[in-house]
Amino acid sequence: MVVFSGDLDKAIASFIIANGAASSGKKVTMFFTFWGLNIIRKDEKVPVNKNFIGKMFGAMMPRGSRKLTLSNMNMMGMGSKMIRSVMKNNNVSSLEELIQMAVDQGVEIVACQMSMDLMGITREELIDGVGIGGVGYYLGQADQSSHNLFI
Amino acid sequence: MVVFSGDLDKAIASFIIANGAASSGKKVTMFFTFWGLNIIRKDEKVPVNKNFIGKMFGAMMPRGSRKLTLSNMNMMGMGSKMIRSVMKNNNVSSLEELIQMAVDQGVEIVACQMSMDLMGITREELIDGVGIGGVGYYLGQADQSSHNLFI
Amino acid sequence: MVVFSGDLDKAIASFIIANGAASSGKKVTMFFTFWGLNIIRKDEKVPVNKNFIGKMFGAMMPRGSRKLTLSNMNMMGMGSKMIRSVMKNNNVSSLEELIQMAVDQGVEIVACQMSMDLMGITREELIDGVGIGGVGYYLGQADQSSHNLFI
Repeated sequence: MVVFSGDLDKAIASFIIANGAASSGKKVTMFFTFWGLNIIRKDEKVPVNKNFIGKMFGAMMPRGSRKLTLSNMNMMGMGSKMIRSVMKNNNVSSLEELIQMAVDQGVEIVACQMSMDLMGITREELIDGVGIGGVGYYLGQADQSSHNLFI
Repeated sequence: MVVFSGDLDKAIASFIIANGAASSGKKVTMFFTFWGLNIIRKDEKVPVNKNFIGKMFGAMMPRGSRKLTLSNMNMMGMGSKMIRSVMKNNNVSSLEELIQMAVDQGVEIVACQMSMDLMGITREELIDGVGIGGVGYYLGQADQSSHNLFI
Repeated sequence: MVVFSGDLDKAIASFIIANGAASSGKKVTMFFTFWGLNIIRKDEKVPVNKNFIGKMFGAMMPRGSRKLTLSNMNMMGMGSKMIRSVMKNNNVSSLEELIQMAVDQGVEIVACQMSMDLMGITREELIDGVGIGGVGYYLGQADQSSHNLFI
């Protein structure tokens, strides 16, 4: 599964699919690229040396899953809050719980090396348990799997 | 096929693919989740009891295929009208005809239970012939199929 | 691979995946539909006769890969420039080089006939080496392949 988008709603959908597949015994690899990297950034600012572009991207993009916005009807963050609140009221796991669940179930979480280089994101800024790989790695995993989604 | 998006253009694309595959004898399942649910809502308001959140979502989201907007160049609805008009002039079926064609060809149309719960959408508000299922159902269908798209 | 989106970032991602797969010996078909057509338009204006709608679409949509904008953080074109500049600084091929590389590697590039008709785009306006086909052609190619993405 390629997670290209950094929208809250698509992130939730991708982790629900990944967790569902993993819990039925499938091997799942999630490859986070471009805006998708923001989903697996740590919440806090990590002190790392960056060049100017890296600093700009770092500052402008949402830092971690709690800062993501919706692809639709975001309304300055109100939509995100509303989705999170209805998920809670309906006893659906939050995105952070879904991520933790994926890690616990052995879903492989891989950050795209090229995207990290382009956006100036370092290993230290990503949540624990994340691997790093290139498009070749992703294609190798896709080759061994029966399904492949671009989200 | 997961239909996550509720954009008019993506809805058209998904039904063209589904109908093409069905007409060549393939079994197709479309799983409508998140904004995709709006594509299969009935046009008219259906009198159902809802809580506050359900009412808000119900009122703010487009009610049915005729209200959808474009992912791009929507320009306050002008883009949607333009696309619909050129489709008509080029004898391409409208989205509503494409949906009917899919139903007639036996394409399985499934609404995501969790999304319905979250957005407070009830069975009565969806068009006829729609089934309801969870992510487990979708994964089971995907397991039996040779292709799987996320739209 | 269906390329539906005409966003610069998604275009880059789709060609990186296509080139990666082709270089490991896979046969790849890219089917450009709806906004994706803009990626394979020629940069220059081509003198062709068009009806009113065709002229409107032609004028409003980005003409070729150099005019594409980002799906996110585009900020009036600043985001696109920034991405292109960091790609250059990191020795990542530009979108135009990625497209040329795909052509050279024998990636099959197909424009969707119906989308061309709808948007009034003619063969002459597309870059060289592009084939034209309908959804039936795409489904036939998908049928023979082990993976299928919608981007």
